[in-house]
Amino acid sequence: MDRRPWNYDLSPLSHGLSSRPTLNDMSTSVNDPALRSWIPVPKNSDFPIQNIPFGIAAWNGEPPVPATRIGDTVVDLSILADMGLLDGLGIDREAFQAPQLNDLMAFGKPAMRALRQRLSELLREGNTTFRDDNVLREDALLPMDQVTMHLPVRIGDYTDFYSSREHATNVGTMFRDPANALLPNWLHLPVGYHGRASSIVVSGTPFHRPMGQTRPDPNAPPVFGPSKLLDIELEMGFITFDGKPLGQRISTAEAEDHIFGLVLFNDWSARDIQTWEYVPLGPFLAKNFASHASAWVVTLDALEPFRTSGPPQDPEPLPYLRTNGDRAFDIALDVAIKPAKGEATTVARSNFKHLYWSMAQQLAHHTVNGCNVRNGDLMASGTISGPAPDSYGSMLEITWRGTKPVTLANGEERKFIADGDTVIIGGHCEKNGLRIGFGTVEGTVLPVVPYE
Amino acid sequence: MDRRPWNYDLSPLSHGLSSRPTLNDMSTSVNDPALRSWIPVPKNSDFPIQNIPFGIAAWNGEPPVPATRIGDTVVDLSILADMGLLDGLGIDREAFQAPQLNDLMAFGKPAMRALRQRLSELLREGNTTFRDDNVLREDALLPMDQVTMHLPVRIGDYTDFYSSREHATNVGTMFRDPANALLPNWLHLPVGYHGRASSIVVSGTPFHRPMGQTRPDPNAPPVFGPSKLLDIELEMGFITFDGKPLGQRISTAEAEDHIFGLVLFNDWSARDIQTWEYVPLGPFLAKNFASHASAWVVTLDALEPFRTSGPPQDPEPLPYLRTNGDRAFDIALDVAIKPAKGEATTVARSNFKHLYWSMAQQLAHHTVNGCNVRNGDLMASGTISGPAPDSYGSMLEITWRGTKPVTLANGEERKFIADGDTVIIGGHCEKNGLRIGFGTVEGTVLPVVPYE
Repeated sequence: MDRRPWNYDLSPLSHGLSSRPTLNDMSTSVNDPALRSWIPVPKNSDFPIQNIPFGIAAWNGEPPVPATRIGDTVVDLSILADMGLLDGLGIDREAFQAPQLNDLMAFGKPAMRALRQRLSELLREGNTTFRDDNVLREDALLPMDQVTMHLPVRIGDYTDFYSSREHATNVGTMFRDPANALLPNWLHLPVGYHGRASSIVVSGTPFHRPMGQTRPDPNAPPVFGPSKLLDIELEMGFITFDGKPLGQRISTAEAEDHIFGLVLFNDWSARDIQTWEYVPLGPFLAKNFASHASAWVVTLDALEPFRTSGPPQDPEPLPYLRTNGDRAFDIALDVAIKPAKGEATTVARSNFKHLYWSMAQQLAHHTVNGCNVRNGDLMASGTISGPAPDSYGSMLEITWRGTKPVTLANGEERKFIADGDTVIIGGHCEKNGLRIGFGTVEGTVLPVVPYE
Repeated sequence: MDRRPWNYDLSPLSHGLSSRPTLNDMSTSVNDPALRSWIPVPKNSDFPIQNIPFGIAAWNGEPPVPATRIGDTVVDLSILADMGLLDGLGIDREAFQAPQLNDLMAFGKPAMRALRQRLSELLREGNTTFRDDNVLREDALLPMDQVTMHLPVRIGDYTDFYSSREHATNVGTMFRDPANALLPNWLHLPVGYHGRASSIVVSGTPFHRPMGQTRPDPNAPPVFGPSKLLDIELEMGFITFDGKPLGQRISTAEAEDHIFGLVLFNDWSARDIQTWEYVPLGPFLAKNFASHASAWVVTLDALEPFRTSGPPQDPEPLPYLRTNGDRAFDIALDVAIKPAKGEATTVARSNFKHLYWSMAQQLAHHTVNGCNVRNGDLMASGTISGPAPDSYGSMLEITWRGTKPVTLANGEERKFIADGDTVIIGGHCEKNGLRIGFGTVEGTVLPVVPYE
């Protein structure tokens, strides 16, 4: 137990009631805004004890393991499991040693819900089991800035939807007909397509500007070279539990039972490659060179207080796409560009609640033909644009195809993303004094790898 | 060693030279048409000793394990590995116990090539090591009709190309403009898109006709119901070894070093769902309800004698897509429909060599933007249509959108595929008296799962 032989500073410790709450108490109180942790939580942190996200963290070259986070402190779940503190939840101890969350998630939503409740219990003000065990505390708690975060799940299949009406309308207006910007199917089904799982990387992973084939002059042959129109797509993605076997479908009412949680997602796009390649089968090399997911999966349970209604749907969807109750979530999103030399400049503010099609509708649509969904699949929203120009989720829309460049704080202009830029997307919910967030998803663009 | 306590009949045994060839001898002779195995091989079998395909077989409820096949005999590699007969190849014994080939393939192409050579050595006429060990023989040899084949690889990402000029031309002629059937990008790059890995199943797995949203009347709202235009796509797919890290590219010259082998592939398609959903991001639910892969992966090495030139390419591709030498393979393909009541009727004969874009070009294109390819990825060819109407690879083309139904041997007509139909695709190479094949990929269509 001495593998981390340093003393983790917990001051100021708050000492409240010392009786250990029962699990029954937990089931209703995990999201209670009044809860406090004995681990310090900075003001405006995305990670109060009401969050309890899940991620994969590595420290000092050790193997990556499941973790959660309170404030700026990472909690190593492998240590808690080793000590038996996570027993009795129906989850094998071995799953807490895996380098991704899939092994934990394989035990299903009730088990993951019980795990979040147990962690809330262990970490809350007044619970002394963990707090007063000096060895355990020094071993299992890590400062966020000393860990390396890994991709939280081994992603099986990645699907990208196209569920923002404003985004689809903007794109249709620019490239097709402003009077008929939405294609005929758009209001009837959540348009989606399959993406590449292998090139999804965790926040912070730099990547190279892609090279590829484009045809800048429609009357000349195509050319090969660096993409000149490198863009972002402000998205969120949800991660699934196992669905049903091939041939069966998940209803909108059942859908959320198969959703573990959400991440921020930046679906990098090379617009010039896309324009040339995408007919008739959709985007391919324009999208699969890199996508960034945030490191912490915030559970759907943690987002429950921020449930809200989505946009009205007219025409009414076909019965298999109808839902009851609030299926959207009020998650504020922002996009900033930090150039190689200079401070970050926020270029857009949007909200997850703008999406026309809900996650429940996306998942029901995805499986209505019998398509099977597996533990660890990622389903992203598509670019989340809001109604106002300062809420658009891509540079394509923000600068309107480059016709309205944005000016950064250092005076530089951007039509698209430049080498050396770091794009930082943040997301959080706030209501009744409770803030739950995702931290950020960040990615820095390196120059192309030269073609030899 | 008595877990299969039955006597496997090897008669007639052929006894030839008994000296054990060295590995050096093997490297040039594995594909020698004169080689014979001590295991009987029926006339016109796809699986002579020059094939040595790899698959995953299970017997009598035991865990599935890696296997190869000679004639109608399955050879359990887990047993051979247990006995040390596969030592010295640089492959851990544990990899021979895995329920998919990925663990073996992780050791790379040289190791898999050495494994094929070792198996050729052990199984060839005159080698007594295996042949004369009664216990081992009874334990490791299984009749094909007594094993259950599983999907050979755990597929990471699945990409589907669209590389048959004849297919793209037919589709463009039917749905767009016969005078400009090929879209402008088609002759410049291998068009491809991402598909769904989760719903790829092994040959023999029945599946349900998909339900979905379609709009049969363009002036009326869409409707929900069973697909009425269920189609096949005659394809082949190649399975990759690990590629390069994200950001690096594989050249056409390097590409085949990253290809393990090929399978037959039937990419089931619901044409009515596809027509309504596919703009602007490509096929989604029209394709992801089921795709069938054949059970045996035939290595690129085994196909070497059947290498041939592909179609001439005009215009000349951009430099990153240029290749030297023969990059196509002469693999005869056939498609048959077996209705619920009646015999199978062959409805098309095509050939893998018709593909305009080679596998080397596909893989180089796929990675030219830095996209990473992993051990176990599947890249399918797209529908392989030949120049003549009887060589088209989909019912869409064979019946020309249903305008020219085919008549089956039992007198029934087919425009598309009916419930109860089994579609059987076969593929083999033949040259200088040597036949190497894939067996078949088969799938039976069950009626829809009713919507409650």
